[in-house]
Amino acid sequence: MGNKVGIIGIGLIGGSIAKGLRSSGWATDIWGVDANPSHAAKALELGLVDQMATLEEATIAMDVLVCAVPVENLVGILPGIMNGLKPGQIVIEVGSTKTPVYEALKNHPKRAQFVSTHPMAGTEFSGPEAAVEGLFTGKRGVVCDKELSSPDALRRIEHLYTEGLGMQLIYMGSIEHDVHTAYISHISHICSFALANTVLEKEKDEKRIFELASTGFESTVRLAKSSPETWSQIFHQNQENLLDVLDEYINTLLKYKGLLLSGSYDTLKDELKKANDITRILSAKK
Amino acid sequence: MGNKVGIIGIGLIGGSIAKGLRSSGWATDIWGVDANPSHAAKALELGLVDQMATLEEATIAMDVLVCAVPVENLVGILPGIMNGLKPGQIVIEVGSTKTPVYEALKNHPKRAQFVSTHPMAGTEFSGPEAAVEGLFTGKRGVVCDKELSSPDALRRIEHLYTEGLGMQLIYMGSIEHDVHTAYISHISHICSFALANTVLEKEKDEKRIFELASTGFESTVRLAKSSPETWSQIFHQNQENLLDVLDEYINTLLKYKGLLLSGSYDTLKDELKKANDITRILSAKK
Repeated sequence: MGNKVGIIGIGLIGGSIAKGLRSSGWATDIWGVDANPSHAAKALELGLVDQMATLEEATIAMDVLVCAVPVENLVGILPGIMNGLKPGQIVIEVGSTKTPVYEALKNHPKRAQFVSTHPMAGTEFSGPEAAVEGLFTGKRGVVCDKELSSPDALRRIEHLYTEGLGMQLIYMGSIEHDVHTAYISHISHICSFALANTVLEKEKDEKRIFELASTGFESTVRLAKSSPETWSQIFHQNQENLLDVLDEYINTLLKYKGLLLSGSYDTLKDELKKANDITRILSAKK
Repeated sequence: MGNKVGIIGIGLIGGSIAKGLRSSGWATDIWGVDANPSHAAKALELGLVDQMATLEEATIAMDVLVCAVPVENLVGILPGIMNGLKPGQIVIEVGSTKTPVYEALKNHPKRAQFVSTHPMAGTEFSGPEAAVEGLFTGKRGVVCDKELSSPDALRRIEHLYTEGLGMQLIYMGSIEHDVHTAYISHISHICSFALANTVLEKEKDEKRIFELASTGFESTVRLAKSSPETWSQIFHQNQENLLDVLDEYINTLLKYKGLLLSGSYDTLKDELKKANDITRILSAKK
């Protein structure tokens, strides 16, 4: 406890980490860094951080630096931050794809002071106003490539996640992480965005269509409210895995289409029964 | 108020209607009819109905008969029920597709005693245990082809929906209804079922994949828990409209795939921005 934490990028994730670390007492001082002046002002106004600082100031003064910037910016800023680290300082990043950062830092002389992490929680909103108290509590956090971090850095970041944010940790390699998130998170966003586009296109002709929107539709389409900037970047960074799962998803839909066209409703029902198995898996997770 | 209501099919929807009509006082007597003995026993045990009866007994004794059986059974049982009606009795059905019943009853001599309706609410669960108090409160109910019902029957069923269940009514033709529900409800179920199948298939090789399931995934895949019997029937009944929207959905996904393959992330971002417009529409609905 009693850590000084710099948060680079005070949006939904960075802001929610700030709230969590403050309420648990894990952080005593929280400085924010954000290139967007209106985000910076909002973060101060909301009390997410004690003060805003430059990246250089935060790198000098803080014990732990949490990089919560969009994934495309991480590869650009991380090596520079790492270059300036003193012994004992730690850098983490919390992005949704891991392989690009793994590649960018694997030969960095201070790689052992870096821990690659991913808190598996979020909402469809963005910006500092979207920061939520308790967003991470009880959720899973992933630590990638733990063998590349020093035992001390790893132990302190495990403590940040478990005691500071109330998360349960799981461990895997960056490559495995990116395959799994393509299946579990990224394709869900593609499904929702594409569903919204499909229905909105139809609405041009049928003005009354949304009068019928039920809670089932709202649930399926919820992720289509997510940030286009964030998600086009994530899709870019994880393009190869995403294309694999997107092909499988399209093939599943084409199979359904074939069953509808041939009137094979018993086979279709069998497919839907198989899909029901998701209930068992999601409830086992609780 | 003070109506005797027979509910044919005491599952999620029939049972929730029973709860709603009882708590509002709209129904004084509620009889249930169900071909499934364990559903019948459960409905009695849960107090959803005052007694279980045969279809014939309910048709003789009740003022209003609510047919909440699977859509494929409606066309089979509705003409027989209608044949036995005395003047003043009313029959409604609450299925998710409207055109097949419209066709089956359009020339029935007692068509004016029938009202075609669809309460736009549900959950992913099924059976009498799934019946929920307040499921319909504040939601939309649809009345189809109102010009085919007698003014008295229409007025009483409007009263059932608004005063008995607390719903807001909208009106449209059966054909329009089935186009709209394909876009708003049925394709959402296809998206979710197919997403579950896609991810479950991958899980065969990657046992740990569900450790990463976040609330976003759970939201998108929620409808995949729905009843295969109910939904394979709905897909069958609305096959033509569903194939139209499924084609559009697949084409949207193929467009995304093309943008990923060609690295056109700015165009992809524009598509995601368009999808964001769903926020405006869903919030305008509230």
